[in-house]
Amino acid sequence: MSVSSDRPPVFAAGQADVITRKPFPNSRKVYVQGKSKGIRVPMREVAQTPTKVRAAGNGASIPNPAITLYDTSGPYTDPDAGIDVRKGLAPSRAEWIAARSDIDALEDITSEYGRRREHDPGLAPLRFIRSRQPLRAKAGRRVTQMHYAKRGEITPEMEFVAIRENMRLEQQVEELKSQHPGHNWGASLPKAITPEFVRDEVARGRAIIPANINHPELEPMVIGRNFLVKINANIGNSAVTSSIEEEVEKMVWATRWGADTVMDLSTGPNIHETREWIIRNSPVPIGTVPIYQALEKVGGKPEDLTWELFRDTLIEQAEQGVDYFTIHAGVLLRYIPLTAKRVTGIVSRGGSIMAKWCLAHHKENFLYTRWDEICEIMAAYDVSFSIGDGLRPGCLADANDESQFAELKTQGELTKRAWSFDVQVMNEGPGHIPMHMIKENVEKQLDWCGEAPFYTLGPLTTDVAPGYDHITSAIGAAMIGWYGTALLCYVTPKEHLGLPNKNDVREGVIAYKIAAHAADLAKGHPGAQVWDNALSKARFEFRWEDQFALAMDPERAQEFHDETLPAEGAKLAHFCSMCGPKFCSMEITQQIRDYAKDHGVSESAARDHGMDEMAEKFRVSGSEIYQGVAK
Amino acid sequence: MSVSSDRPPVFAAGQADVITRKPFPNSRKVYVQGKSKGIRVPMREVAQTPTKVRAAGNGASIPNPAITLYDTSGPYTDPDAGIDVRKGLAPSRAEWIAARSDIDALEDITSEYGRRREHDPGLAPLRFIRSRQPLRAKAGRRVTQMHYAKRGEITPEMEFVAIRENMRLEQQVEELKSQHPGHNWGASLPKAITPEFVRDEVARGRAIIPANINHPELEPMVIGRNFLVKINANIGNSAVTSSIEEEVEKMVWATRWGADTVMDLSTGPNIHETREWIIRNSPVPIGTVPIYQALEKVGGKPEDLTWELFRDTLIEQAEQGVDYFTIHAGVLLRYIPLTAKRVTGIVSRGGSIMAKWCLAHHKENFLYTRWDEICEIMAAYDVSFSIGDGLRPGCLADANDESQFAELKTQGELTKRAWSFDVQVMNEGPGHIPMHMIKENVEKQLDWCGEAPFYTLGPLTTDVAPGYDHITSAIGAAMIGWYGTALLCYVTPKEHLGLPNKNDVREGVIAYKIAAHAADLAKGHPGAQVWDNALSKARFEFRWEDQFALAMDPERAQEFHDETLPAEGAKLAHFCSMCGPKFCSMEITQQIRDYAKDHGVSESAARDHGMDEMAEKFRVSGSEIYQGVAK
Repeated sequence: MSVSSDRPPVFAAGQADVITRKPFPNSRKVYVQGKSKGIRVPMREVAQTPTKVRAAGNGASIPNPAITLYDTSGPYTDPDAGIDVRKGLAPSRAEWIAARSDIDALEDITSEYGRRREHDPGLAPLRFIRSRQPLRAKAGRRVTQMHYAKRGEITPEMEFVAIRENMRLEQQVEELKSQHPGHNWGASLPKAITPEFVRDEVARGRAIIPANINHPELEPMVIGRNFLVKINANIGNSAVTSSIEEEVEKMVWATRWGADTVMDLSTGPNIHETREWIIRNSPVPIGTVPIYQALEKVGGKPEDLTWELFRDTLIEQAEQGVDYFTIHAGVLLRYIPLTAKRVTGIVSRGGSIMAKWCLAHHKENFLYTRWDEICEIMAAYDVSFSIGDGLRPGCLADANDESQFAELKTQGELTKRAWSFDVQVMNEGPGHIPMHMIKENVEKQLDWCGEAPFYTLGPLTTDVAPGYDHITSAIGAAMIGWYGTALLCYVTPKEHLGLPNKNDVREGVIAYKIAAHAADLAKGHPGAQVWDNALSKARFEFRWEDQFALAMDPERAQEFHDETLPAEGAKLAHFCSMCGPKFCSMEITQQIRDYAKDHGVSESAARDHGMDEMAEKFRVSGSEIYQGVAK
Repeated sequence: MSVSSDRPPVFAAGQADVITRKPFPNSRKVYVQGKSKGIRVPMREVAQTPTKVRAAGNGASIPNPAITLYDTSGPYTDPDAGIDVRKGLAPSRAEWIAARSDIDALEDITSEYGRRREHDPGLAPLRFIRSRQPLRAKAGRRVTQMHYAKRGEITPEMEFVAIRENMRLEQQVEELKSQHPGHNWGASLPKAITPEFVRDEVARGRAIIPANINHPELEPMVIGRNFLVKINANIGNSAVTSSIEEEVEKMVWATRWGADTVMDLSTGPNIHETREWIIRNSPVPIGTVPIYQALEKVGGKPEDLTWELFRDTLIEQAEQGVDYFTIHAGVLLRYIPLTAKRVTGIVSRGGSIMAKWCLAHHKENFLYTRWDEICEIMAAYDVSFSIGDGLRPGCLADANDESQFAELKTQGELTKRAWSFDVQVMNEGPGHIPMHMIKENVEKQLDWCGEAPFYTLGPLTTDVAPGYDHITSAIGAAMIGWYGTALLCYVTPKEHLGLPNKNDVREGVIAYKIAAHAADLAKGHPGAQVWDNALSKARFEFRWEDQFALAMDPERAQEFHDETLPAEGAKLAHFCSMCGPKFCSMEITQQIRDYAKDHGVSESAARDHGMDEMAEKFRVSGSEIYQGVAK
């Protein structure tokens, strides 16, 4: 297991440059204070330039408000934050965790395997040097957010996520009112998410706050269908490619573009060390599939897996700080033959591993039979369950079939058992599903799994576009998000073809950010649209720099614009290369409005009265209409 | 209007190389003969390699059938087709048109402007040399497909599209049966589209076959919600960028990736000549927005537009062979004030031009008042209407508002008037619409416009992702296609930012091909899924080359795969770089199946009987399980 000694230490001097830290244009990181001690909720504030009053001629302008955006990028986009990847992020939750007085600091790592890795001198160049002892619940205590919520307590984590979801609501409401003057809002203005509401949703299992007590570096976030739809990005090396530095940068890169959570799905060498580097530097919850590492430990032979080895792996990872585990406990022995006639059989890695184990031993899945013991481990570190869907369909032909739904029912049973241990739970879902069969998945999941958050992979709405599966699946993801899925697991353009690189991660994250935001809009939250309206107003007023800064991917937007019109002056132009100056509908519309305003043509006047005289004036002044345009 | 004399002739010797002619991998062009004379319907046939029987050890294999795909790429992908872009494609429809004996061949171009361009010696280098006279209906005759359909006639065009839609149905049915052995199909197997059905759909206005009598080069296709969902790609230069050669190649390129129709939206110089080159070389219907060229003719001043000038432009383009015209006749004077409070006003170029004209003259839109005269021109060449939605929303805030729906109602009125002239009609639709407001658009359009085909731009489901609007809109496009839209107008990644280049065209077309196919699947047509099932089976069996060849974009799929595993041997490997060899779920599933088969474990056996003994055998032979795998 030792690495060759000529390997330079991870992030040796200079190498930290690979971490992207560039702030977004016209943006600053703001921190909203909470009532409880130490709560500073990060948000991105995008400044806007003023609207120039056309036809005024005197350079008059009307200011536009700054727009607040949800920000997953952590301290990396804050130029004032000092970051040393070799030390990890500041443990901002450490005091909250300690204050609850229900944990022990351990002398050493509990996991046998973990201790071996930590003490192997050959691994020194790969090792992140820990500065804190691992934590565990005191004997008999449960340290989960669900446990506190059920007791009626509001934790700092709950207060944090309530503030975070609100995104400075008062400003949004003001902005909405200015965007729609005279509109009768009735009861439709967004309401503030309160810490009490977060607590109640967590207590009844309808939302989770994945936050391992050993991951104090994270900025808490909430997953549930009464909150903003979230997205997950998968990273991780495989036996074939990539390094620890690359994986840490992929995590930073994914959160930069909007990943709310990140799963480290490494299957190659040095999984233990790679994960430590990622967690210590991650501002978002980190998930894993522990069976992958367990399989590495038995040389890739599923039939050699044992409960004892798996248990040691769970504890190893829980003490590193993994926030949620995918566990394929719903793949029962009797379901495996149901996949025999499928076109693509079992396509979940974890599912196929467990199926092989079950068949080889002709025994029930040990993840199922040992569920209560697993729950006790989860409760001792506050690791959330992401109950895997090992029998999800891998193609349209297998969608919504008997094996898929058989497992989903078992996921529901496991969910309720986990809740009895106060363990937070979400359920994983498909997969490949044509559009008309998507809704049934959400309905059954809500029903059978007691409304626990649904966490779906896509779904892909067709099988025929490898190379573009971020798109085939963004369609399904937007729809399933609208129907009620709380967390969307991204799919990159490399799906089915190879390991995603950094650019693929960006493409996948943005496609899913689009799906999640489209779902938020479709769920009818008026606050979600403040962002769209602001960008559209900037677009209409040819405030190009504002349009770029407000774009989901500011760099791409500007790069595409500048490809044909790179001159600085084009950022003020009232057209782009798509239509050219004479054919810009927005420019023409503004001319119409300027005219109407100058000549007192109101909406009602135009409806009620003739406009012959006005028409004449307009035509006469027509050739000089540009005189009034702000330059 | 003359060009500088140092401009080399368009497609001068050697320049024709810019036209892409590379056939798709493992594919051949097949032509299905019709009963009527000269009907040869092109399709793409993808050959597949055999499935190697694992664990057989003797190299046994089972053949896989060739898969037939709908093919929009014209003769360009047929290596046997001789093509000279300077002469244009072969006029395969010419005989059918002549045989109807209802047309006159004209001495010269009717349009005054057109004649001027044709006879200007300074334009010689730009000019495509026509080899045929323009055609027009004999006085008092209507030469539209709708006219023939209403008379009960089945034209060769109708027979052609029926064959084309079927995509060799008998083979598909056989393939479906083999994909789902033992499945009770009941009434759900796909039924053949008959020429009679096509005729009836065209007669009642529920489908159109855009096919100008002056565009004999095209391969007929049908647009209607009881047929496959189609997509349109916009090309065309603007005042700011691009050449004639580039635009012709963009057309070829767009159809290569799957564009069913192409709109030439050129707004820059030499619109007339650019269009001629595109039409003469286009195997798909070409649409335009004639008001763009009319506006160029009056120096970009909407208020100077006149009916006479517009009429001359319609005839100019109709005699070149444009297959459908977008005409913004629904933008009525009284609707314009309804846009005053919108966030982004009027965002259709044509809509804003007509709005400015209406306001400047305080007169009703002349496209509306002259509608009957326009219909007579359309009927004389069989140009189809695409009734523009000049007041479509340009942002979510303006979606489904009063002005948008006011215009849609007028589109319905215009549709019915056009039908009384036997002119084929489709209606354009939005725009920017959040997911939950999409369905209402289709419902109102079907109701108000008598089920004429709906032709929508996207819709974009959020405003905040410039640079990725092919994705924001593919989500809406897939959904609106499912709900009943017949033609989806693509959006490229450059939307709102600049003129699309070739790569943007490919990205946009593929995103929309995905949306259209996802919609076909969701509409429940079992035949649509033959393609998905074949690709998924190839994927499951590690037939990488077959997976690439069957992919919507074979080149991209292979390129992405080869990025990490370029070796030729990797095309036979039972894994990819995403998971590596030990974690490939598909490989593990196949091992499970091999085992089950070798040991006689059937689905029912596994359900009913214990498998202890088998389990033992499996474990013992586990380490050698690869012995049985076909290499």
